[in-house]
Parts: sequence; structure tokens; C-alpha cells
Amino acid sequence: MFITFEGLDSSGKSTQIKLLEEKLISDLRQVILIREPGGTKLSEKVREILLDNKNSEMNSRAEFLLFASSRAQLVSEKILPAIKNNIIVLCDRFADSSLAYQGFGRRLDKILIEQINNFATQNLQPDLTFFIDIPIREITRRREIDGKANDRMETVGEKFFERIRNGYLWLAENNKNRFNVLNGLEGVEDLRSKIWKIVSSKL
Amino acid sequence: MFITFEGLDSSGKSTQIKLLEEKLISDLRQVILIREPGGTKLSEKVREILLDNKNSEMNSRAEFLLFASSRAQLVSEKILPAIKNNIIVLCDRFADSSLAYQGFGRRLDKILIEQINNFATQNLQPDLTFFIDIPIREITRRREIDGKANDRMETVGEKFFERIRNGYLWLAENNKNRFNVLNGLEGVEDLRSKIWKIVSSKL
Repeated sequence: MFITFEGLDSSGKSTQIKLLEEKLISDLRQVILIREPGGTKLSEKVREILLDNKNSEMNSRAEFLLFASSRAQLVSEKILPAIKNNIIVLCDRFADSSLAYQGFGRRLDKILIEQINNFATQNLQPDLTFFIDIPIREITRRREIDGKANDRMETVGEKFFERIRNGYLWLAENNKNRFNVLNGLEGVEDLRSKIWKIVSSKL
Repeated sequence: MFITFEGLDSSGKSTQIKLLEEKLISDLRQVILIREPGGTKLSEKVREILLDNKNSEMNSRAEFLLFASSRAQLVSEKILPAIKNNIIVLCDRFADSSLAYQGFGRRLDKILIEQINNFATQNLQPDLTFFIDIPIREITRRREIDGKANDRMETVGEKFFERIRNGYLWLAENNKNRFNVLNGLEGVEDLRSKIWKIVSSKL
């Protein structure tokens, strides 16, 4: 089983994916948790480039292709072998992130992004995807509470994040077989129990 | 004007591209010479990953996507601005290399490679491409003379390089408007003068 978590930063997805991992382990399941971009030697190096160039003039096509490269290595080296061995794979972000961020957010050609995603992932689709939805204003609020600088947020503009959120909602609408939209304003415990209900029904 | 040089390693293309650069400079032309993958801060870092992982298990899709990412950055940051400023761009390898090596050599889907190339290059095509053709046995011979280890060559096999060579010939046949096939067995001086004849007729 291959489960992905999607959403904007500060939506709470990393908290929930860790809670799900703990629950699966306590349930004596074999599980690996991967954070994109990363998870392999190559992918971690690509991650460094992506973070290092954060504030420089990285071309958005080059950026997407780096994500796709990292993903291709991750799928072939880690995810496919794990699935073959009946290990549950939890992924913090996957191909949907590229569609939401680079396709909807940065307005690159969505059909091409999907094709390149499919090329990179060898057409692998998650069995379950949790999108934790949260209003953009709530993200700004949470980041302020955490003392995180909102510089980048302010620079790129709230409209950019609104487009990403709408992209995720569009993806959820068009992939109902695997997408679950959760209300990120609900408490951690409520979300945890909803996610577990859905996952356990599939195990 | 955008001119690319293609061919297998040891075909003599790096010698010829340098001779062409010198001639253009002595002709008081503005020119830049770029070697792929590289030419930008991001591309050089990607190059490091590609070289560093040479002998490890890099997935061929991940490898191609790294080349494409480096190329996307190179096109937007260097090549397009140079062309805009009437600077002649000489490129040691470009998109055709991916089709020849990853498409024909590693047998990835050629149509997808072309689509991803076009995405990365924003549909930029060279005005002139020189393919220096050379029999595989001659490459082996030159590498032995140079004292270069033929380990990788032997590991991957001559058939792999034969497929790449045939790929280049196929590309030349299907892009006659820009491709020039040169016989790499000819002397350096003969090749130099043939290349200059073609380039100067276009200036």
C-alpha cells in the first residue's frame, strides 16, 4: 500500500503522517516514511540544490525537472521495491505536489507536468492520498505563531498559494478514487482518527 | 546564432569546437562556449551529481531528468539572453545528446524524451549542429592511445555505443535543415576548414 500526504506547508500533514506511521508500527505493520524531495542519496543531493538556490533565479522548469529526477530515483530505488515486499509506504508529498505547485502555482503546462510525472514514476499512482486543506489566512496565522518569517510568503503573494490550494481541490475532484480531502482546521486528534478510519478500512 | 556539436566522447568534437571559438574570436565576433551539462551555478551542481554517481545505481530516468533540468536552467539563464544580444553560442552537446544517449542508447521512450527536451529548452532548436561521426572501434583505439581506461566502455558494451551512433545518424537524417555529419576519421585541419566553410556561409 502506497499512501501520500499533500497540502501546503503548515497544514499539519507532517504531524499526521508521523502519527499514522506510529499507529502502523504499533499495529506491527512494516512501514517506511519518505519525505519528498529526498529519500535516496541522489534525491538528498537534489534537495540540497533546491534549498540552496531557494532565493536565486532558478528557472521554474529546471526546478520541476529536479523534483521529477529526485522522484524517479525514489520510485525505482525505494518505493517499488518496498511495495513488492508488502511494506506500507508513506510519502510526505509526491507527484500531486508538482501539479499543484508548478502546474497551478507557477502556471507551467499541466498536461506536460502530468506526462513527465508519469515518466518519472513509471506510472505509479498512490492507493490513498490525504489532502489536508486549510485556508491561506490560517497558514499565515500559524506561521506567525511559530515565529517563522513570512518573507517568502509575502514576496510570492497569497494569490500564488490560493492557486495551489485550488489546484489540490481540482486534483481531489478529478481523482476521487484515491483522494481524501480533510479539513485542516479540525484538531490533531480528530484528523488522526479520521485518517486511521480510512487507512484501516483498506488494510 | 546557436551552434551545437554532437558525437561520442573521443570523436574530436571538443577540439573542433575550441578551434571554431578561436576563429570566431579572431574574426572579432562575440561568442560563448558552453559545455553540457554545466554553464550555470545550478547546472554545475547537477553535473557534480551526474559524475559523482557515475558508478552507482542511478536510474536512467532520473539521469535524463537531471540533464533536462541542467539544460532548462542553461537555456533560460545563458543561451536565450546571449542570442538576444547577438552573441554566437557554441554548445558542446545539447538536446540531441539526450535523444542519442538516453533514447537510443538506454532505450527510454524517444517521443517522451523529445517532449521533455522541448519543455526544458522552451522549444529552442540549434541553427547548426555538427555531428562528428566515428566508428566505435576507432574510439576504442583512441582511448587506448590516450591511456584512458576502457572499463566503462567494456562494461556497457560496444553495442550501446553503436546504438548511440545510429541514433545520431537517424537524427541527422531527420533534421537535415540543421545537421551536418562530418567524418571524424579526417584530420583536424580538414575538419576545421569544413566546419568554418559551413559556419561562415551562415554568418
